[in-house]
Amino acid sequence: MIIHMAEGATPDQTQAVIDRIANDYALRCETIVSATTVIGVKGIAAIVDEGRIAELPGVERVIRITEKYKDASRNFHHEDTVIRVGNVSIGGDNLTVFGGPCAIETEKLAVDSAMMAKNAGCDVLRAFVDKSRTSPYDFRGLPIEKGLDIAAAMKAATGMPTVGELIDLRHLDAFLKAGIDIIQVGARSAQYSPLLEELSRIDTPIVLKHGFGNDLNEWLCAAAYIMSGLDRQGRSVGQGNKNVILCYRGIRSFESETRFAADISMIPLVRQKSHLPLLADPSHSSGDKKLVERVAYGFVAAGSNGLEFDIHSNPAEALCDGKQAVGEVEASRIVGNCRQIHGSLQGIGYETGKSQLVAVR
Amino acid sequence: MIIHMAEGATPDQTQAVIDRIANDYALRCETIVSATTVIGVKGIAAIVDEGRIAELPGVERVIRITEKYKDASRNFHHEDTVIRVGNVSIGGDNLTVFGGPCAIETEKLAVDSAMMAKNAGCDVLRAFVDKSRTSPYDFRGLPIEKGLDIAAAMKAATGMPTVGELIDLRHLDAFLKAGIDIIQVGARSAQYSPLLEELSRIDTPIVLKHGFGNDLNEWLCAAAYIMSGLDRQGRSVGQGNKNVILCYRGIRSFESETRFAADISMIPLVRQKSHLPLLADPSHSSGDKKLVERVAYGFVAAGSNGLEFDIHSNPAEALCDGKQAVGEVEASRIVGNCRQIHGSLQGIGYETGKSQLVAVR
Amino acid sequence: MIIHMAEGATPDQTQAVIDRIANDYALRCETIVSATTVIGVKGIAAIVDEGRIAELPGVERVIRITEKYKDASRNFHHEDTVIRVGNVSIGGDNLTVFGGPCAIETEKLAVDSAMMAKNAGCDVLRAFVDKSRTSPYDFRGLPIEKGLDIAAAMKAATGMPTVGELIDLRHLDAFLKAGIDIIQVGARSAQYSPLLEELSRIDTPIVLKHGFGNDLNEWLCAAAYIMSGLDRQGRSVGQGNKNVILCYRGIRSFESETRFAADISMIPLVRQKSHLPLLADPSHSSGDKKLVERVAYGFVAAGSNGLEFDIHSNPAEALCDGKQAVGEVEASRIVGNCRQIHGSLQGIGYETGKSQLVAVR
Amino acid sequence: MIIHMAEGATPDQTQAVIDRIANDYALRCETIVSATTVIGVKGIAAIVDEGRIAELPGVERVIRITEKYKDASRNFHHEDTVIRVGNVSIGGDNLTVFGGPCAIETEKLAVDSAMMAKNAGCDVLRAFVDKSRTSPYDFRGLPIEKGLDIAAAMKAATGMPTVGELIDLRHLDAFLKAGIDIIQVGARSAQYSPLLEELSRIDTPIVLKHGFGNDLNEWLCAAAYIMSGLDRQGRSVGQGNKNVILCYRGIRSFESETRFAADISMIPLVRQKSHLPLLADPSHSSGDKKLVERVAYGFVAAGSNGLEFDIHSNPAEALCDGKQAVGEVEASRIVGNCRQIHGSLQGIGYETGKSQLVAVR
Repeated sequence: MIIHMAEGATPDQTQAVIDRIANDYALRCETIVSATTVIGVKGIAAIVDEGRIAELPGVERVIRITEKYKDASRNFHHEDTVIRVGNVSIGGDNLTVFGGPCAIETEKLAVDSAMMAKNAGCDVLRAFVDKSRTSPYDFRGLPIEKGLDIAAAMKAATGMPTVGELIDLRHLDAFLKAGIDIIQVGARSAQYSPLLEELSRIDTPIVLKHGFGNDLNEWLCAAAYIMSGLDRQGRSVGQGNKNVILCYRGIRSFESETRFAADISMIPLVRQKSHLPLLADPSHSSGDKKLVERVAYGFVAAGSNGLEFDIHSNPAEALCDGKQAVGEVEASRIVGNCRQIHGSLQGIGYETGKSQLVAVR
Repeated sequence: MIIHMAEGATPDQTQAVIDRIANDYALRCETIVSATTVIGVKGIAAIVDEGRIAELPGVERVIRITEKYKDASRNFHHEDTVIRVGNVSIGGDNLTVFGGPCAIETEKLAVDSAMMAKNAGCDVLRAFVDKSRTSPYDFRGLPIEKGLDIAAAMKAATGMPTVGELIDLRHLDAFLKAGIDIIQVGARSAQYSPLLEELSRIDTPIVLKHGFGNDLNEWLCAAAYIMSGLDRQGRSVGQGNKNVILCYRGIRSFESETRFAADISMIPLVRQKSHLPLLADPSHSSGDKKLVERVAYGFVAAGSNGLEFDIHSNPAEALCDGKQAVGEVEASRIVGNCRQIHGSLQGIGYETGKSQLVAVR
Repeated sequence: MIIHMAEGATPDQTQAVIDRIANDYALRCETIVSATTVIGVKGIAAIVDEGRIAELPGVERVIRITEKYKDASRNFHHEDTVIRVGNVSIGGDNLTVFGGPCAIETEKLAVDSAMMAKNAGCDVLRAFVDKSRTSPYDFRGLPIEKGLDIAAAMKAATGMPTVGELIDLRHLDAFLKAGIDIIQVGARSAQYSPLLEELSRIDTPIVLKHGFGNDLNEWLCAAAYIMSGLDRQGRSVGQGNKNVILCYRGIRSFESETRFAADISMIPLVRQKSHLPLLADPSHSSGDKKLVERVAYGFVAAGSNGLEFDIHSNPAEALCDGKQAVGEVEASRIVGNCRQIHGSLQGIGYETGKSQLVAVR
Repeated sequence: MIIHMAEGATPDQTQAVIDRIANDYALRCETIVSATTVIGVKGIAAIVDEGRIAELPGVERVIRITEKYKDASRNFHHEDTVIRVGNVSIGGDNLTVFGGPCAIETEKLAVDSAMMAKNAGCDVLRAFVDKSRTSPYDFRGLPIEKGLDIAAAMKAATGMPTVGELIDLRHLDAFLKAGIDIIQVGARSAQYSPLLEELSRIDTPIVLKHGFGNDLNEWLCAAAYIMSGLDRQGRSVGQGNKNVILCYRGIRSFESETRFAADISMIPLVRQKSHLPLLADPSHSSGDKKLVERVAYGFVAAGSNGLEFDIHSNPAEALCDGKQAVGEVEASRIVGNCRQIHGSLQGIGYETGKSQLVAVR
């Protein structure tokens, strides 16, 4: 449930709403103050009597949100969320590029690839220590401590913030201690609630991929797990972690010539449905380095806030997904052309979801 | 089977190859002459003994093509195919926009929408007389003769070439007589071989959509039905119709928030696999006018040779698919921005498939 | 729109309803008389004012059917439809087995396979003259006349009724003249409306497969094309052909280890949604003769009214789909076990849709 | 890699093979002794020189297994695996039925439903304490300790072994301490490797569902994570847990009328590819209690070793998935008919995979 206060409503009027919800229904609220004040009710808002809230002074409108991913919905939070990591901004009018090797294999390859990502103009460095793989017989990454040391070396060599996938929730402290700046949740963990709940307790930015078998509702609900700060009993046990960055990678389909079906309509749709920053991954969606460049242009032209893709100094020898990694020359051209496309289409075509604002307020 | 003649091979040497194939195997050939000569063997080439051809003077290489869509394959025809209709060129370095109403409903609406398409900068006019619909209780178009008259009026009013979907193969003569310039094959006819065979007997350009349940191989094989000129017994009964334009519209998937999953990786992939011009349809893929604009940018940035989309002078009252049609202002902005994106990315990122040439010759 | 007359309503009262609909709305009706009388309004029933019908004497209930496949719906026709071909009954409590070679290749193979189907206990013989194939380079069947002659020979040798796929609508007369008893519509023609409309003009039973990219609604709407007898303008131009037999064969999915995903839940679901007989095809769904037998048992246990599967006297040499055909021993075991399973589960588990009757009347 | 010793090979010869692999390649072996001895090499067997093993006395054949799910493959372990829990046997020629409420909601409802499952003839009791849900706002189960207490009460009341889903790997000890007999891995955890690895350290039987976006290879690879006992570095750190029971529930598809597409061909296919017991879940696949019964018959007739389905004493009031639960009368009929179908088809139609044995040895 969302309560829009009228323009000119006083802080006391806002507080009175919050108090009635706390006293009568034992539910907590969260407020967003921009031009006007919006109050969001947390937890099982179905028990709240709409009329008892609408009657309070200063209340303009009471809206029941039927979307189960409330926290991630643009109906709940109108303006684009922008997340800052060091000097890098993600979301809103920014185009942010995450690049680097698919996995850390050796220190030399990792640092070489990191320098390539820096030279190509990327903003955030992929430093993937742990790899989620289909078979236990596949290469799953170096030992965690060793990998985290190399991630730190990549960061030191480039001065760039790093993103790394956290698979085992028991590694969270080690990741934070090692200075990983952004934590990624991969396809195979995308609906694993204990991990999502752990990430709701911190405020480190999270890149949230969707499972390749998940639909839009499930993806945004996974974001709501991180953002809502609810426990298993639906009680609000913290602020939640609002710093969620979505990353689209396509879904399973019957077409076998591409790795996943990256539905281009999802890019503007997610931008309209959610206020969260949206990246897209041309490497894991297409699965083929001959396709990555053009797919990257497609994603950015369709309105994504950025990209995440694989760069490798020696793709032919990569232990993991080398066939979808590009080299420095191509990476550099991708970043340059994407910045140009993004700039020329700024604010066009419902990209920012501002048309939604009209409908909601 | 394809036979590449060496640089400097003489016409007599080429003829000797063709003769041996005719005399020993009763198969016909087709030759493409650019920098060098390429000979394509038609029919069941599996019976040809590779060694007996390779031994002839002037032959550089004999290649068995395993792709069942041979005629549509870039392995068979290296250069981009460019198709000309009046002043309009489709394929190669051109960006060609097909626009207009989803279906002809009344003369006034149709001509109004046609003028909007012209004003917006479209190149080819949608003039759809017959509509393939899921249910017999849906609106399926005006009577054919009446619809074709309106199509002629749309063409007269705008001076633009027209494209119309042919569903019933018995209407072909009427379509040609009425001056429809380009014939479209829709999703529900995309594998109906009697229709495809009829279209192989003419040389009118064909826009070939794929069924929403078809994969890439099936789509290109449908093109091969039109291009090969084979009859049911696999005998070559004509030249075939080489003027095929592919149009991508996405496939069925489990995601219910978009109409079809338009896999953006398919755009550069089809450009690499086939020499045929490739359009993409942002209206029928997304199914939502709020998404059409950004999806159009995505398709063009990914390398499509053009677009086909719905423009309607009064979308709210359209009897068919009004929710996915855009108005003139938006159509105009789409065409303008697409031309700019297309121009700025010309020749970049494997778009033209020239990298394939190296591999083949 | 469906009008249920009360128990004891007189023929005159029924006629009065039909007359009002004809006079006031220019629409035709169709009546089904069992315990009570049910009137179905044909064409665009949305224009009929419900109140003006409900007020007439003898009318018990007026129901607007929102399903676009009205004619095929159990809401429209409560009792199972049973179709008779010679001595064979299809639908209701019968289990009917269609078997034979995937395609007619030579007279000897065809007649041998036909005798195997007879010996195995099949009821109807597959006599497939024309084959719809992905590529024009695939084997597409013998010349039609030759194939039809062999079909007649198969019928003569076995005394069994035959089923054959009609692809080209211009072959319809030849098929009827040659004595094909049941006409099949295949996956690639399943939404080709000109063919469906031709089949609505005759009363020969039709086996209707669904496209592998079609959902349930599209499949039943294709049945409605055949059954409703509407022309393109939605006018009722005949009785329609009520003798439609559905045949389920599974849909495209991302799983590559089976040919199609044959969703077992569809069997009882279609039986509940539609009154038409439902076959299932274990050969084309699984695509693998090692799976056919057990899949056949699954379909029958789930409630299908019969099976259609491939039997070949020499699967290893079949030009078409030999890898999914079974031999006589296995076919015989399949038929025997299926009859036993079917008998033991007669009338159990909502199979007959009789629970639906309660809800509707 | 698998090494088949000849009939009559001595234990010393077997040991010599194991020693060479340990000494030369630092890899461990596992042996299965039935009529003959089979040696499986654990870890990265690609480094083993085939010739150096084949030359040893008593070796009949060396086979490289390319399947990434080696441990779960019937190529590796020929005989059906049978798992025993108390008096209940799962796999082989047994038909085992798991039933009970979808989730434990109150003690009374849970114990009532448990008694219904017992009365209906089920073998194992669903006692689901934790529920994996799409949204954090959905009901996710009682507090763990409270739920485990009720699970114990259900077990005490019925005397049946219990199965419960483990989501949070940190709850494993509590589950074992509370006497949960079989641990289930659900769709959303089906590729979460840290959980799978924890389960490889115990020998409690595991029911492994597949993710609704996973294919057969991914599912069996998840089984291999539990069975192989490898750590992240691919080192063998234990025996692994061989007691894995597969449970099929269907995959995502474009058909919206059923919850998941439960491909019936997968039942005999999995039985052929893997030696593990296979259950199927008619409740979660169909998503509709009106379909459950017939879908259950389909699964058993197709060859599943058992079923798992939802039984609820008051489906209309269930907080979770009530619409797919059946009551006692229907459950009882399902169990009875399934046992009859299963018995009558024993050993028919490649069910037991014994035909595979011939091919392999």
